[in-house]
Amino acid sequence: MPTTEFAPLVHIYDTTLRDGSQGEGVAFSVEDKLKIARRLDAFGISYIEGGWPGSNPKDIEFFKRARDIEFTHAKLAAFGSTRRAKSAPEDDATLRQLLEADTKVITIFGKSWLLHVTHVLRVTPEQNLEMIRDSVAWLKANGREVIYDAEHFFDGYKADPAYALMALEAAHAGGADWIALCDTNGGAMPWEVERIVREVRERVHTPIGIHAHNDSELGVANSVAAVQAGAAQVQGTINGIGERTGNANLTSIIPILHLKMGKTCLPENRISDLREVAHTVDEIANMVPNERQPFVGRNAFAHKAGVHVDAMMKNEVSYEHIEPGQVGNVRRILLSELSGGATLEHKAAGWGIKLEKGAPETRSLLARLAELEHDGYVFEEAEASFELIVRRALGRVRRLFDLVGFRVIVERRNGSAVTEGTVKLIVNGQQVLTVSEGDGPVDALDGAMRQALVPFYPELAGIHLTDYKVRVVDGQAGTAAKVRVLVESADGEDSWSTIGISENLVNASWNALIDSVEYGLLRKEWRESAT
Amino acid sequence: MPTTEFAPLVHIYDTTLRDGSQGEGVAFSVEDKLKIARRLDAFGISYIEGGWPGSNPKDIEFFKRARDIEFTHAKLAAFGSTRRAKSAPEDDATLRQLLEADTKVITIFGKSWLLHVTHVLRVTPEQNLEMIRDSVAWLKANGREVIYDAEHFFDGYKADPAYALMALEAAHAGGADWIALCDTNGGAMPWEVERIVREVRERVHTPIGIHAHNDSELGVANSVAAVQAGAAQVQGTINGIGERTGNANLTSIIPILHLKMGKTCLPENRISDLREVAHTVDEIANMVPNERQPFVGRNAFAHKAGVHVDAMMKNEVSYEHIEPGQVGNVRRILLSELSGGATLEHKAAGWGIKLEKGAPETRSLLARLAELEHDGYVFEEAEASFELIVRRALGRVRRLFDLVGFRVIVERRNGSAVTEGTVKLIVNGQQVLTVSEGDGPVDALDGAMRQALVPFYPELAGIHLTDYKVRVVDGQAGTAAKVRVLVESADGEDSWSTIGISENLVNASWNALIDSVEYGLLRKEWRESAT
Repeated sequence: MPTTEFAPLVHIYDTTLRDGSQGEGVAFSVEDKLKIARRLDAFGISYIEGGWPGSNPKDIEFFKRARDIEFTHAKLAAFGSTRRAKSAPEDDATLRQLLEADTKVITIFGKSWLLHVTHVLRVTPEQNLEMIRDSVAWLKANGREVIYDAEHFFDGYKADPAYALMALEAAHAGGADWIALCDTNGGAMPWEVERIVREVRERVHTPIGIHAHNDSELGVANSVAAVQAGAAQVQGTINGIGERTGNANLTSIIPILHLKMGKTCLPENRISDLREVAHTVDEIANMVPNERQPFVGRNAFAHKAGVHVDAMMKNEVSYEHIEPGQVGNVRRILLSELSGGATLEHKAAGWGIKLEKGAPETRSLLARLAELEHDGYVFEEAEASFELIVRRALGRVRRLFDLVGFRVIVERRNGSAVTEGTVKLIVNGQQVLTVSEGDGPVDALDGAMRQALVPFYPELAGIHLTDYKVRVVDGQAGTAAKVRVLVESADGEDSWSTIGISENLVNASWNALIDSVEYGLLRKEWRESAT
Repeated sequence: MPTTEFAPLVHIYDTTLRDGSQGEGVAFSVEDKLKIARRLDAFGISYIEGGWPGSNPKDIEFFKRARDIEFTHAKLAAFGSTRRAKSAPEDDATLRQLLEADTKVITIFGKSWLLHVTHVLRVTPEQNLEMIRDSVAWLKANGREVIYDAEHFFDGYKADPAYALMALEAAHAGGADWIALCDTNGGAMPWEVERIVREVRERVHTPIGIHAHNDSELGVANSVAAVQAGAAQVQGTINGIGERTGNANLTSIIPILHLKMGKTCLPENRISDLREVAHTVDEIANMVPNERQPFVGRNAFAHKAGVHVDAMMKNEVSYEHIEPGQVGNVRRILLSELSGGATLEHKAAGWGIKLEKGAPETRSLLARLAELEHDGYVFEEAEASFELIVRRALGRVRRLFDLVGFRVIVERRNGSAVTEGTVKLIVNGQQVLTVSEGDGPVDALDGAMRQALVPFYPELAGIHLTDYKVRVVDGQAGTAAKVRVLVESADGEDSWSTIGISENLVNASWNALIDSVEYGLLRKEWRESAT
């Protein structure tokens, strides 16, 4: 049971961590997965599918570490298949691993398409029904909430509706709490989904969910069509990541359910986090956000055509299907940057800094930020650097040290590389010159900087880098292009992100590193003076 | 009249050149537009909207030059608005410019939403109806096929169905050949579109078209829903380019109509050009193709999960909603921790290398790959490195050079950084020592390596790095963690991806760089020897 009393009309079942991780180019570490799970829980998602414990050791470790997380809304689900044809449920390795994952919810998939039963599973139609029924029953007997995923359901139903329904009835007989109908190949049409969900609901009395894929660019449409027909659970992934063309995109489905269909699926006041959640997942997956993405993309509410902008000025509702702020997005008028001011004011207030709208310092700050964004800064991913820039512009950052210079040498001979970094800093009026070896240029500089600073700021010893990412900002120029470095740091209490941009990778890393140290050392005194 | 006798059941109306060019980052030259128009005509599109002659001189020039093109299927359309409130049709500048474009078809848009009539146009409801009727009538009197685009129709109909229908009846009274219902803000739901199109068809006897946008990720769904309800024309753009989140994506709509709904929209044997047409437009628009794009994307038929690959081998129809070749695409089997021997065999066969399943060399190769994956390699994103590793293990890579060593120095003084890279290589038995400055360590090494190698391999001058990405493999260890570098390279004909892993960022970059060069220089001889 979730610990809050919020009861959604439609339950969102997120499979970003399992089906989403099947997408090309997506490779989540255990740490990444825990981070996403926490964010999705805070967002108010009902179910989070964490992985497939039978498929790889990383997922087993995820479930082990997830036990320490106290979720406020979400129930964690482990995913796997029905038992094998030849083992009893209690002896089946897959079912055992699912129980060992120790989650409240277990989701298992099985076949309802005869083609698959005979050609892929290679069992008789009756054996398949038994495998479904007693796998579900065994998991129920072990106290779990059980979701049965009917793989390839729509294809199976179109081929042989009687057998496809028998497969669902087997899950019902086993005691399944939910039956999710899957359009595994993404080939179904919305009117088929709507009709079939209605027909299923007439026959099967277990609550129905929908699991759609985007192969025909209909993943969102098929999901909401199923809800129209009475489905009460929608499975999908953030940003629609997933194998081939991706899963049904929750980032579009959630606002459609919530804002257009009146089907509440998140607790109050959460949907305005949508854009931030979408970007967080992109960032963790190290994927370039799709600027054209509906609802959350940078261009989703950008107006270019002269006629439109003119009409916008006359009446906002003219050319926008929703108010962008509802999903945490902003209107952008291309050519004239009219947005930003209110956001900045709002942010600064959160740090205890009062900015007057229209004051000269606010306006020059806005101009400076626009310039930095043009250079490739993305502040939403590096709020610590953003706060530092604002505070520096207002003269509110106490100088901790000054850099005189640094040097890094990386040398490779006979296959092995040695890296040496030296830094020269001025701290409290004293010049300090230190040197350190490291595993790479950033590590060597980090080591030398710590040597120089720890005698003055012993708290620095408790601050560690936890992630490091680099991306080229302008792809066309190849190795000479501008790079953006994102660094994540933590000190056991808190974690924060900083950014550095430069044509020189080492320089960009250094800038991000310095921001990380300054923010880490100064943020406590800022917060104290604000309260 | 089109010059062939092909009669489509649904007419495709392409507005890539007009609405598509409103997309951020899209800027077609007149030459680009002519190239796209020719390609769309050969593809078998019914209508090509070339531009808005009233909005810019480039579009006027396009129509002038397009007169010399003999289209085989398509009719060219010029786009504009109904007349202004105060001018008679024969004196109206917009209508005159439309006639001067000298196209067979003219498309004009007008208002059916009272909010817009009173707030944007600022005319009376009756004046608006008159503007629609006599603008259409005047263009018809001038011998044109006339398409009336009812802007914001669905919003208008929801607000005041009676007035919205009167606006359509005005277009009908004027003699319009088609009425296209527009969901201009992209906020309509498919069931609304279907219902409203049915209701309109009961009242208005002009053939109906649909013009949808993708703001709710329902552009494709709304277009095909309208066809279900009897619409016989679909407007959209190739790859869905367009303002904000884009227009309805014809690249998905065409195969759905053709392959799934039995609504022929292209002449025989053209649909297999779909992927090539999509990529041509991407290329002309200088946009990076979306790998996840339904039907035509590189990943649209890519299979990763072990369970899926296994099933694929047993029965292809299991995990594909259409046969990829139908739209000119190909199936790809991805490499990942979830798949194994069968995948490797299949991949190698594609390169012309026959691996015997279970042979000792295959088994040791699999063990080696598992080890590399454990170290953080992700081959699915770096197929060129994967091929190199397989070929190296089999002793099938000709040595192009040997590395003796390299050194990089990055030095920052007074805020600016200087980077110098030296490399020592043995090429054809000669030792070569070169030095280069660069914008960062990778750029400097790349420069020095090119200096050393170009005299021996002049083709290298044509190979460029197009993208560069870095990611920490294991976040826990901070700056000392292992990093993964992904490099993308291209030579104008082809592009390929390589990977490097090391605790040292510079080392990892060097490894990825070397793979990129070896693959770029050797792949042609490999392909030739395979055929």
